[in-house]
Amino acid sequence: MAFLTSNSYGKERVRLTKISRSGGRHEVHQYSVEILLRGRFEEVYTKGNNAPCIPTDTMKNTVYVVASRTEFSSPEGFALALAKQFIDRFPQIERVEVSISMERWRRIVVDGAPHPHAFVKEHGRRTARIAHGRVSGNGGYPHLEGGIAGMELFKSSGSGFTGFYHDEYTTLPETDERILATTVDARWSYLPSAAQGPEESFDGAWSTVEEIITLVFATHESPSLQATLFAMGSEVVERIPIIESISFSMPNQHHILFDLERFGIENQNRIFYGTDAPFGVINGTVSRDPVPPAGSADGGGRSGKAARGDR
Amino acid sequence: MAFLTSNSYGKERVRLTKISRSGGRHEVHQYSVEILLRGRFEEVYTKGNNAPCIPTDTMKNTVYVVASRTEFSSPEGFALALAKQFIDRFPQIERVEVSISMERWRRIVVDGAPHPHAFVKEHGRRTARIAHGRVSGNGGYPHLEGGIAGMELFKSSGSGFTGFYHDEYTTLPETDERILATTVDARWSYLPSAAQGPEESFDGAWSTVEEIITLVFATHESPSLQATLFAMGSEVVERIPIIESISFSMPNQHHILFDLERFGIENQNRIFYGTDAPFGVINGTVSRDPVPPAGSADGGGRSGKAARGDR
Amino acid sequence: MAFLTSNSYGKERVRLTKISRSGGRHEVHQYSVEILLRGRFEEVYTKGNNAPCIPTDTMKNTVYVVASRTEFSSPEGFALALAKQFIDRFPQIERVEVSISMERWRRIVVDGAPHPHAFVKEHGRRTARIAHGRVSGNGGYPHLEGGIAGMELFKSSGSGFTGFYHDEYTTLPETDERILATTVDARWSYLPSAAQGPEESFDGAWSTVEEIITLVFATHESPSLQATLFAMGSEVVERIPIIESISFSMPNQHHILFDLERFGIENQNRIFYGTDAPFGVINGTVSRDPVPPAGSADGGGRSGKAARGDR
Amino acid sequence: MAFLTSNSYGKERVRLTKISRSGGRHEVHQYSVEILLRGRFEEVYTKGNNAPCIPTDTMKNTVYVVASRTEFSSPEGFALALAKQFIDRFPQIERVEVSISMERWRRIVVDGAPHPHAFVKEHGRRTARIAHGRVSGNGGYPHLEGGIAGMELFKSSGSGFTGFYHDEYTTLPETDERILATTVDARWSYLPSAAQGPEESFDGAWSTVEEIITLVFATHESPSLQATLFAMGSEVVERIPIIESISFSMPNQHHILFDLERFGIENQNRIFYGTDAPFGVINGTVSRDPVPPAGSADGGGRSGKAARGDR
Repeated sequence: MAFLTSNSYGKERVRLTKISRSGGRHEVHQYSVEILLRGRFEEVYTKGNNAPCIPTDTMKNTVYVVASRTEFSSPEGFALALAKQFIDRFPQIERVEVSISMERWRRIVVDGAPHPHAFVKEHGRRTARIAHGRVSGNGGYPHLEGGIAGMELFKSSGSGFTGFYHDEYTTLPETDERILATTVDARWSYLPSAAQGPEESFDGAWSTVEEIITLVFATHESPSLQATLFAMGSEVVERIPIIESISFSMPNQHHILFDLERFGIENQNRIFYGTDAPFGVINGTVSRDPVPPAGSADGGGRSGKAARGDR
Repeated sequence: MAFLTSNSYGKERVRLTKISRSGGRHEVHQYSVEILLRGRFEEVYTKGNNAPCIPTDTMKNTVYVVASRTEFSSPEGFALALAKQFIDRFPQIERVEVSISMERWRRIVVDGAPHPHAFVKEHGRRTARIAHGRVSGNGGYPHLEGGIAGMELFKSSGSGFTGFYHDEYTTLPETDERILATTVDARWSYLPSAAQGPEESFDGAWSTVEEIITLVFATHESPSLQATLFAMGSEVVERIPIIESISFSMPNQHHILFDLERFGIENQNRIFYGTDAPFGVINGTVSRDPVPPAGSADGGGRSGKAARGDR
Repeated sequence: MAFLTSNSYGKERVRLTKISRSGGRHEVHQYSVEILLRGRFEEVYTKGNNAPCIPTDTMKNTVYVVASRTEFSSPEGFALALAKQFIDRFPQIERVEVSISMERWRRIVVDGAPHPHAFVKEHGRRTARIAHGRVSGNGGYPHLEGGIAGMELFKSSGSGFTGFYHDEYTTLPETDERILATTVDARWSYLPSAAQGPEESFDGAWSTVEEIITLVFATHESPSLQATLFAMGSEVVERIPIIESISFSMPNQHHILFDLERFGIENQNRIFYGTDAPFGVINGTVSRDPVPPAGSADGGGRSGKAARGDR
Repeated sequence: MAFLTSNSYGKERVRLTKISRSGGRHEVHQYSVEILLRGRFEEVYTKGNNAPCIPTDTMKNTVYVVASRTEFSSPEGFALALAKQFIDRFPQIERVEVSISMERWRRIVVDGAPHPHAFVKEHGRRTARIAHGRVSGNGGYPHLEGGIAGMELFKSSGSGFTGFYHDEYTTLPETDERILATTVDARWSYLPSAAQGPEESFDGAWSTVEEIITLVFATHESPSLQATLFAMGSEVVERIPIIESISFSMPNQHHILFDLERFGIENQNRIFYGTDAPFGVINGTVSRDPVPPAGSADGGGRSGKAARGDR
């Protein structure tokens, strides 16, 4: 006997570009949108009954219609509007997730002034995500997240790695001066009340998180990428009231001293080679409260108990 | 105040090639391995105390050492050996996850005979994954999975999509003859007892799943990709006793009729263009029992109740 | 003063799927097509005069129209038809290049018989390319090529690398037993007369080249990837009369012995790690005649004189 | 009979990170280097004679050694030093090509000041390339190029496409207001004398080219991407004396109005969808003189005669 014990479906990579024209100055919103639905779709799978099945093509159309009908200035704002449309429109949906990845376009500066409609791409992406259940209340409120993806950082000093655990297969030398390089992917959970707030607060949160991440990276004397992660996250939850927790996933992109000594040359900590594989990966969630919210950005399991920082 | 409410870390893309030479005939095991640890690592993050921190470089070394010391013939077997090594060796670990992606090498046939040491790559990959907690018992046994990834399928008949839900933004025409194209990613959970069984049973499971997926894809008159998914999954759990559930994630890679009528040419369902974006995605888990095992391959949430198929 | 000293333009990644239905058995032709034009387009660039400019959107439409109007069974055949359409239709074109990458779909076998309309993807791609100038004659005939791309090969014995040049920065140890792994990209030039021949000869050439490459890879005792390349190419031009030359570009995908001795373990040539970067790359063109045809598949420069093999 | 009619080999993706430390302020040079050799290597292929073969592993070592022994501040400077090392060291080399792709690291600003050793990645890459033959003189001098890669640009006004050629398969509507989006890849040839000049001139050239490309993109009323290309190139050769020609390859990344009218919504030129495939591609070389230098950045063929702009 076979049972369908879970299911979901949706549309990925719906690519939306919206141009807002007000007084000659254009705003560009360029999003890649993903929609994922859960609900009473079992019979689509088990009986070949398509009656409840919302075509993914309709999901795509809905993205463009909602974009045209809604005023929004942030991916969080658009995600909220889209999720509401799906929940309100389709009774068979129990939960919708909307994920957005936004390209960052910076105005080209001409004669000292930002150009009204010409842009060059910025490094890194901004993201937003909402999980919206039909029932509100405990665990059912729209869980809203912001995020930053693909922000690459590099420092050539101010990072070490010493005092770690050794077993018989440990060969890594301790060092108090190493290259630290990573690509930040961060997602943060907004307080439920923030979803009712003005969209400007999302823009403000993003800019402040970006600033905190770069400044902490630059100035934190790093004993490990883990400690740098916690320093970043602590400052985020302490400084931004509408964020209740933030999760990071950061690769440790190793740079290894090239062996020049065999050629009679002293390396002097100058010549390195980078590697793609293997790489370390460091994950962690930092919260204002000892327990993060249900359905939070934390994609993985939990360690036994929350740990408080000394900061 | 800031709290670390979850954390994990590890090593990705550890690339192992093991050559087994017995009597002139070589076996190639080519794996990309990922290790992820949870445990008592909070102080690494919160206090800069590296004492419990197992360097990811040590994880890498461990992969190669265990590969050299262990006899194995399957990624499942190697995952079991690796997970055991980590749990046994390091008391600070509470849970280890090992994920393996295996390249498939097929022997080149020379004069009608498979060559002893020359191979050409096969399409698709085999995967395995284990989540091993320190405490055994309910939920603590090693949760072992097998998988298949990147298997691309295409059919030019035997697929339709009709009778679906309409709202005002639905424009998709109904059709009883369309192209169905997808790339199968499947992961299945083994019964706990299977982890003690002979490795040959993992190879047998993989081959049977591959066969079921291709045969069901070819012969199932598909009213939707969802229904094809359930047909595949049902046959898997019904025919392979050591598998208790299987999860699929399958994109619907759309092929759209090119409009030739504007040039006075009848298309006759022959000329299509493929698109990368957007694409549909269909997920589902099929289980032998109404409730899948804790920690199962199901990556997403659950819909309210399991649905039984009529098959 | 500024001059436009060369120019070309076109359309890339035109994705065509053509289904041929004859007697219930379907044939799938799935191509990604690239069109590149040269001709009297200078004023488009230099004067903003679009009068001669064929929109790339028209190129795309033309691909689908020609696909619907033409009977073809090979990418070479479709490339010939497309190039002729462009040259015949547009007087401002002096030269058109058409490049095709074909997905390989193998019939799923059901109850011992190939299925009429269900397929699984095969590893590797087939390619074709034509460069067609307006004037025929010496150098102006349609230069037609076939190709194979992305065929990954691996052997765990029968390969060494010894006796090479040493300078003070050479540290590579000599070995008479190493792993040889590569991904073959090959392109071959057909004799001008072949373009008039039956399409089956292109299919036959492709199958024979594929067979030669795999068999030579398996059986050639390789002193270097260069020598294996020449052995492959020699057999191609000697055995396939319609091919006048073949060019290869093959990475040397290094597999390096992992240092287990520091853990008191003997490696015994069994445990390796693969690397993505850096990698070697070996290029070469093998011809039936000492001088390859003008406009041949050889993308790079020439070494001073052709070298004859002893084979 | 089989002849080797051309050959080359080398090493790709040699990943170098050099940290220069002077007075506490670090400079980062992060390059991916490719080396390609031509010369008297025929017997490696045809006779299995490795005596002249320089292992690609030696090429890799040489990259790091030269990086450690040479003072350089630009990829052009490092390319010159590397090419000279290969030509001087190995008599069997007739020609060496060195290609470099440089990551762009921008200092993080802390309290208004650029940080001495912490960086965030900038969008786009800088490139350099040298082709150095053994014999100098006409065509034999080191041909040196600079370049910019992956610079993504977008404008929502100031671009049209009208008056183009029509045939029966042309369906593209004319428009005087469209989105123009592209990713600039440009390579420019330096005058031979520039290779003897100070490295600062390469940095100056790069910055000026980047500025010209962005400013022309923003302000040029574009009748076609071709005309924008020529406007960019003209200004480059007119303003930067050490550059004798520049070649561009620019995709036309289409953004298509989404059909909202079927839902009773007026689009008003606001809602678009982006597409990955197919895309247009526009190539062109702009030179100070009617004939570009031998071995120039122009990778493709030539149109019959150079066209002079009216600018």
